[in-house]
Amino acid sequence: MREAKPPPDFPPTPRTRVKRLSDCARYDRETIYAILDAGLLCHVGYVIDGQPYVTPTAYWRQGERVYWHGSSASRMLRRLEEGVPVCFTVALLDGLVLARSGYNSTLNYRSVMALGTARPVEGEAAKLAALEAFSERLTPGRWAELRPVAKQELKATLVLSLKLEEVSAKLCSGPPVDDEADYEDDVWAGVVPLRRVAGPPQADPRLAPGTAAPAYLDAIEIDELLSQGARSD
Amino acid sequence: MREAKPPPDFPPTPRTRVKRLSDCARYDRETIYAILDAGLLCHVGYVIDGQPYVTPTAYWRQGERVYWHGSSASRMLRRLEEGVPVCFTVALLDGLVLARSGYNSTLNYRSVMALGTARPVEGEAAKLAALEAFSERLTPGRWAELRPVAKQELKATLVLSLKLEEVSAKLCSGPPVDDEADYEDDVWAGVVPLRRVAGPPQADPRLAPGTAAPAYLDAIEIDELLSQGARSD
Repeated sequence: MREAKPPPDFPPTPRTRVKRLSDCARYDRETIYAILDAGLLCHVGYVIDGQPYVTPTAYWRQGERVYWHGSSASRMLRRLEEGVPVCFTVALLDGLVLARSGYNSTLNYRSVMALGTARPVEGEAAKLAALEAFSERLTPGRWAELRPVAKQELKATLVLSLKLEEVSAKLCSGPPVDDEADYEDDVWAGVVPLRRVAGPPQADPRLAPGTAAPAYLDAIEIDELLSQGARSD
Repeated sequence: MREAKPPPDFPPTPRTRVKRLSDCARYDRETIYAILDAGLLCHVGYVIDGQPYVTPTAYWRQGERVYWHGSSASRMLRRLEEGVPVCFTVALLDGLVLARSGYNSTLNYRSVMALGTARPVEGEAAKLAALEAFSERLTPGRWAELRPVAKQELKATLVLSLKLEEVSAKLCSGPPVDDEADYEDDVWAGVVPLRRVAGPPQADPRLAPGTAAPAYLDAIEIDELLSQGARSD
């Protein structure tokens, strides 16, 4: 039984329409935002002299934009600052799907791919606000505990953003789908779920004795599974 | 105290020499293979009509080559089969590094970036051997339990490989490195370790009652932390 898909908030273009496993395709804002808000690491693709490069980096979302940042001296960021086409991809691996044949074995995952041109965030106030949003997303309350960002640090930091316009998602979940004849086979089949977890925080060896561990350390959640309802196809 | 780095097995080129955080850079076979063998998902970058695309997909390594596969109808694989430049990137996220300033906060991770031209694996026997190696890597012993791959399935599957030649790695680990003055600040600093874990296997609802869970399900290890010795900088 297949549920109706949400209507597309981002109409697929020839470049973002999912062709393989199109049942998994989603173009609605709620699904796309949920995937983006569950991840931490994106992979940004760009071209220099005809050669593609793929750089992993941390990202965050604010409204209809995704952001990433780094050193003003970074090759990737200097290239992107010029206003070139990028591909922004996030993939969250949810499980190994062990079917009764190699052919039907696959992965469960959630992914988002966005195409467009990244733009630098201009102005000290806007850059600071973006960096604060990044920090507060993972460790709410920490930004106010840290010393202010130095002028020179802000200058050395480039923040880029990409508007979510040409974007698609894929949601692959659930048990294996085998060829009907293969269900007779005497072999284990199912899903090995995978998730990213945070371990106990490791205090800096130079931390002053008696420094309390803040509450936000207990609440860090990375690549959390979506609720079962949201994941069913 | 910084240990000497291993000598480069893959001499850095202008395209693979790590410029940012070059202390983290590694070009030796042992480090690069260890990272590749700890991961499961790569991100492959390629260009179509000037637009970069980044596709997440499962991969495996055999000797000096990495492999990935998919449907012969896939847009990505059909493009790559033509012999175009690719960027193959693997990133394993190991931790959030919470420094005493936003500027010095960062991520601990291991990554590999390889540039080159992917080639299709030709011939039924070679394709089968590659697919078996992929299966056996994650679930040793399972390949022999599965029914043979059908001729039509093999035909519908494209296997690509990339020789590791122009390749570099980054290994960022350890506690925060703060500005000396900031060590006085009364704020928690340290690392929140992250790792990918496998949960209890979920049997297919259509699994025949009494089907034993195979031993390899208990041994699946994804994104395992390297031993502390191998990770220290």
